[in-house]
Amino acid sequence: MRISELSRASGVPTATIKFYLREGLLHSGQLTSATQAQYDQSHITRLRLIRALVGPARLSLATAKAVLDAVDRPPESPLELLGRASVALAGRSGVPEDAAARELVDQLGWQIESGTPALADLAAALQAIDEAQLQLIDGGVRRYAELIHQVAVDELSTVPTDTPESAVRQAVLGTVLIEPLLTALRRLALQDAAGRRFGPGR
Amino acid sequence: MRISELSRASGVPTATIKFYLREGLLHSGQLTSATQAQYDQSHITRLRLIRALVGPARLSLATAKAVLDAVDRPPESPLELLGRASVALAGRSGVPEDAAARELVDQLGWQIESGTPALADLAAALQAIDEAQLQLIDGGVRRYAELIHQVAVDELSTVPTDTPESAVRQAVLGTVLIEPLLTALRRLALQDAAGRRFGPGR
Repeated sequence: MRISELSRASGVPTATIKFYLREGLLHSGQLTSATQAQYDQSHITRLRLIRALVGPARLSLATAKAVLDAVDRPPESPLELLGRASVALAGRSGVPEDAAARELVDQLGWQIESGTPALADLAAALQAIDEAQLQLIDGGVRRYAELIHQVAVDELSTVPTDTPESAVRQAVLGTVLIEPLLTALRRLALQDAAGRRFGPGR
Repeated sequence: MRISELSRASGVPTATIKFYLREGLLHSGQLTSATQAQYDQSHITRLRLIRALVGPARLSLATAKAVLDAVDRPPESPLELLGRASVALAGRSGVPEDAAARELVDQLGWQIESGTPALADLAAALQAIDEAQLQLIDGGVRRYAELIHQVAVDELSTVPTDTPESAVRQAVLGTVLIEPLLTALRRLALQDAAGRRFGPGR
């Protein structure tokens, strides 16, 4: 199909498609003349993915590109999958990983290499909670960690091992797309729980 | 103490403190002359809070101001606490809440008013997962929702009811500061689970 048809089929404006092509987020079509190219289903699929990343997952264009690069490159080892997603998404918190974050993961028995970006994110999050003197739930950070770990093990079991490409895709997108889901669910759950605790008639 | 001492005590540069004063994020000190003011412990506490919000929680200055306004204003009813936090933090996903999101919260038995910003965020997150054709864990979105709701009920029980101010503070900051914690923990948990599943010797 031509670019105008790709635009109709995907719901993405032609100018935006051209922009994604220029930025290397979308692969080129098959050239049929100096100024025309043919696009196919793979372009529609990719456009959906780009929209999901820059839309709900709210990634910047640069981060979306890093994530897409991770999806495109087959990994040298399966263990690298999540390392790549993690690096592509790394926070720029500016807080170095610290003793408190390391101690926590060690206590939990999690095997985390030093230099993992999320370890610095954890340090920053713990520091903010500490500085704001926020009162935590019983069991504190460990309680959150144990719940999250349960789900992580199940999530990993959804990662297919048939081809490296599909494995990377699932691992990277799982990391990116489940985060906004959890945030939205948590705010709604708090709202519901608040209604039950403080609402009229309670 | 003078502004230079406040800077030393809080670790925030004087120019930044002046900026927060101008923007109304930090309350003024007690004027002792036309050009000098005295600051106290309340300023140190507030600066810590501002740094936590614009640092690890990665809020924009405008959003941080909205959150601080929510912390400062006593609520008319306890149920408004989380509504305010939720509105201050509302995503600008541009996706209207839709039938799928509404159906999900109804199925879960959560009481969520129409127009709640997180409902639109949920719609956007579900749509992205759908468009990317991401494979979910067994039990799907409901499994995430039920785990999250368990914790939400406990989190609400940490909200003090002695004064409206402390209630708002805990509710709003709990919403903002726990999110980066959960994201960091989830990435680390995935990393650990990936090591166990794919690591050397497995």
